[in-house]
Amino acid sequence: MKNLLIATTALVATAGVAAADISVSGDGRMGLVYNSQDTLLSGDSNIKISSRLRIGFSASGETDNGLSFGGFIRADNAGFNFDGGGGVNGRAGSVFISGSFGKLSMGDVDGAAKAAVGQVSGIGYTNLSDINEITYLNSGTDLNGDGSDDTLYPTPSALYEYAAGSTVFYVGIGQIGTQIGTVSLPGGGFAVGEVGQSYSVGAKWSNDNGLTISGGYEATNDVAGTGDASDWVLGAQWTNGTWGVKGIYLQGEWAGFGDVRQYAVSGDWTTGATTVTAFVTRKELEDFDLDTTSFGLGAAYDLGGGATLAGGIASVTPLAGDDYTVGDLGVKFNF
Amino acid sequence: MKNLLIATTALVATAGVAAADISVSGDGRMGLVYNSQDTLLSGDSNIKISSRLRIGFSASGETDNGLSFGGFIRADNAGFNFDGGGGVNGRAGSVFISGSFGKLSMGDVDGAAKAAVGQVSGIGYTNLSDINEITYLNSGTDLNGDGSDDTLYPTPSALYEYAAGSTVFYVGIGQIGTQIGTVSLPGGGFAVGEVGQSYSVGAKWSNDNGLTISGGYEATNDVAGTGDASDWVLGAQWTNGTWGVKGIYLQGEWAGFGDVRQYAVSGDWTTGATTVTAFVTRKELEDFDLDTTSFGLGAAYDLGGGATLAGGIASVTPLAGDDYTVGDLGVKFNF
Amino acid sequence: MKNLLIATTALVATAGVAAADISVSGDGRMGLVYNSQDTLLSGDSNIKISSRLRIGFSASGETDNGLSFGGFIRADNAGFNFDGGGGVNGRAGSVFISGSFGKLSMGDVDGAAKAAVGQVSGIGYTNLSDINEITYLNSGTDLNGDGSDDTLYPTPSALYEYAAGSTVFYVGIGQIGTQIGTVSLPGGGFAVGEVGQSYSVGAKWSNDNGLTISGGYEATNDVAGTGDASDWVLGAQWTNGTWGVKGIYLQGEWAGFGDVRQYAVSGDWTTGATTVTAFVTRKELEDFDLDTTSFGLGAAYDLGGGATLAGGIASVTPLAGDDYTVGDLGVKFNF
Repeated sequence: MKNLLIATTALVATAGVAAADISVSGDGRMGLVYNSQDTLLSGDSNIKISSRLRIGFSASGETDNGLSFGGFIRADNAGFNFDGGGGVNGRAGSVFISGSFGKLSMGDVDGAAKAAVGQVSGIGYTNLSDINEITYLNSGTDLNGDGSDDTLYPTPSALYEYAAGSTVFYVGIGQIGTQIGTVSLPGGGFAVGEVGQSYSVGAKWSNDNGLTISGGYEATNDVAGTGDASDWVLGAQWTNGTWGVKGIYLQGEWAGFGDVRQYAVSGDWTTGATTVTAFVTRKELEDFDLDTTSFGLGAAYDLGGGATLAGGIASVTPLAGDDYTVGDLGVKFNF
Repeated sequence: MKNLLIATTALVATAGVAAADISVSGDGRMGLVYNSQDTLLSGDSNIKISSRLRIGFSASGETDNGLSFGGFIRADNAGFNFDGGGGVNGRAGSVFISGSFGKLSMGDVDGAAKAAVGQVSGIGYTNLSDINEITYLNSGTDLNGDGSDDTLYPTPSALYEYAAGSTVFYVGIGQIGTQIGTVSLPGGGFAVGEVGQSYSVGAKWSNDNGLTISGGYEATNDVAGTGDASDWVLGAQWTNGTWGVKGIYLQGEWAGFGDVRQYAVSGDWTTGATTVTAFVTRKELEDFDLDTTSFGLGAAYDLGGGATLAGGIASVTPLAGDDYTVGDLGVKFNF
Repeated sequence: MKNLLIATTALVATAGVAAADISVSGDGRMGLVYNSQDTLLSGDSNIKISSRLRIGFSASGETDNGLSFGGFIRADNAGFNFDGGGGVNGRAGSVFISGSFGKLSMGDVDGAAKAAVGQVSGIGYTNLSDINEITYLNSGTDLNGDGSDDTLYPTPSALYEYAAGSTVFYVGIGQIGTQIGTVSLPGGGFAVGEVGQSYSVGAKWSNDNGLTISGGYEATNDVAGTGDASDWVLGAQWTNGTWGVKGIYLQGEWAGFGDVRQYAVSGDWTTGATTVTAFVTRKELEDFDLDTTSFGLGAAYDLGGGATLAGGIASVTPLAGDDYTVGDLGVKFNF
């Protein structure tokens, strides 16, 4: 739940004054996580205490001619993080301006393909390291939680969105120039050097019966001097409020990885305050003869007031090493 | 003083809506600190300008069935700090859930012994580097102000509290597994490698005449492969509003340190807006034939509105090196 | 625009209660920056996406006898930054106390000469790396945006201000002792080692016809063991609401730099919501036979509600290397 600060001017408001606001929100979680390979957690234990608290700020305003503008940044992303990225240089958080022309965002924004297609449902109170998620080329995904993106998508980047009827169109462009990055995958990851221009397009169509069809294309040129990378992705989602299913298929060729195929499917079933979720996510890097598969089952119970009891268990076949099982059980909060 | 943000929903409140809130608070201080050994401050000066400003966020909510939940994190602790700890991974700040079953907290929480017994009173507007405080094994104490704990207590840790009449019981458990840590003591410190399981228990009993008796036991297994560490601690406190005294005794055996004994006593005398405080704190590490003693005298004058004028002077016999005198004089603020 | 949090006590306010408050504000920007030397931006591109979002906290309170106190810190400056400076140790942000005696501030505050004379107008939505600004010896300037100052002025420092009629007097003192620092100049910079005492004085006089005359003197002793550094600076400013001009001249001798001369002039012309600005800034380090000149032209259009459309273009003759042209075009926001 977001909390609205009352602007000073609002307290002495006169007609016609456009007020800029900042609202403060937050999220937290606490519980236990499990990993069958104890070396993946700390020391020789399979169980770990895992908690966190994050605070975020949403800024918003309106120009005299009716354009909206604003942005969002978390307190933990505000300054420089380990790799020099943060809200102060646009490598975390984002700002936007919007109007009848659409919405233009800059900062740590997603590429157009990810913005259109998204991810399948995850499980657990920690989302289990996001193992349900496919890896987009231009995702701006902060996989390791250090506040800046880990993928080939150099930030600050820009995302343009335009809604026409039941369809939303997306166009994205990565930082013009180059940047060091890392592609993270379950059980491994690939460091990449400089990359060239990144760009992406996407579209999402929804109807009144709960059906959403989406797709996108994304590319990054000159990946570490080894060539280009590109992929296309399709998504389909349907929900009737009780049942929901979502599927994603991504196929492309990434310089340094060869042919890349990723599949993800999730299903959600909600009854009362309880939602049960299952997913399967598979990633194939054919030239390396490497693939990783994760599948999991979880449940969440809405405690009300912003608190949710959630747990999940999943099996992971990583890029390297033995299969392992992960799970968690805890409470997550929205403030 | 805490400042309550008005939740958006509160502005449009309907009966029965449980609202989550975030309040913003802060503390600051400004003044001069003195050290008789100029090499302990910057350059060849015995006097240093010392100021700071910190902002904190308290989150709170309530579930439909009446459980309370929330947390606290400071802005400067929100992201990753020097050693990789921060609010985003539960190594700074904390979250909690509470109800008739008691209160369970996770994050950078104290061990049960410290939570029950606490510390004696400190002096000065900067608290003079906390030289009044004893060092708990499982304290989660941020001695160097880098936002994560310096002691053997691996975070995120968990603390459970339960109040039964005039007695509060505490049970603590450190991060399950291992973690690199450092034990800081005045004039020195000891780096430790991996540690095993940490746990602690404590209790605090108070009566209506201002008397509080407290005690605790804490242990950490497998300290850097050299053995276990454990101690017990007793505390007694009495106040009648004008006079207050507190005493703490800790005794144990810490792997790598041998027998450990710590004593601390403080007295407070309040008249009008003025409080005068004195303390003596002594720490003995017998196997190393090392000990450190600090004693000090200070006064604080409540300026009202959240501001306090405070100063203190103390003598320190450090673990290594010559005795030195420290002092400060300045103003501290609560927002 | 600042946003006032309603203090808890204000909600239950009783007469005579002095309440401490924290208000949240922010600024953001988004657009494109240009550099004719592509190697100065990322990769082989002359154009770069540049955005950011920053959140700030203003704390304020009042003592029972009517003294005001408070402070300001940005979220990105709250914790430790790259060089160990941050709001928690007074090397970023600041706190103050004020009354009829004047105002005393501590933290990352300006020296007295800079506080009195300031800078000429800059251009563009990013201020083009502050190339309009002269470099003060005791400026506490965060030239590289890492949250702590880059110049010879060790922080936390102190600044005292006193207004007598139409004149404001300033006295500043740097951290007593030493500190490693760096002097940054366009196209280069000089690392300095330990410095001794820094101090500064300044004054600013204004009349009712828009004229302001200002001046200051500042000195730092024992700069990296090579000697002392000092300079004096004069400023003059005039505005009638439509036209504004400002000029600054600084002359001194800086150990390790020799004779230093800096000149800056800017002019502003405002019509309706549009302001056009031009500046010339020149810095001469005579002993090194080095100088740098920047001149630029920009325009800003006030969109209302805290948003401004701004752009600028400037030519830079750096200390080393070829001349280059920089420019930007974007939107900046105040929340």
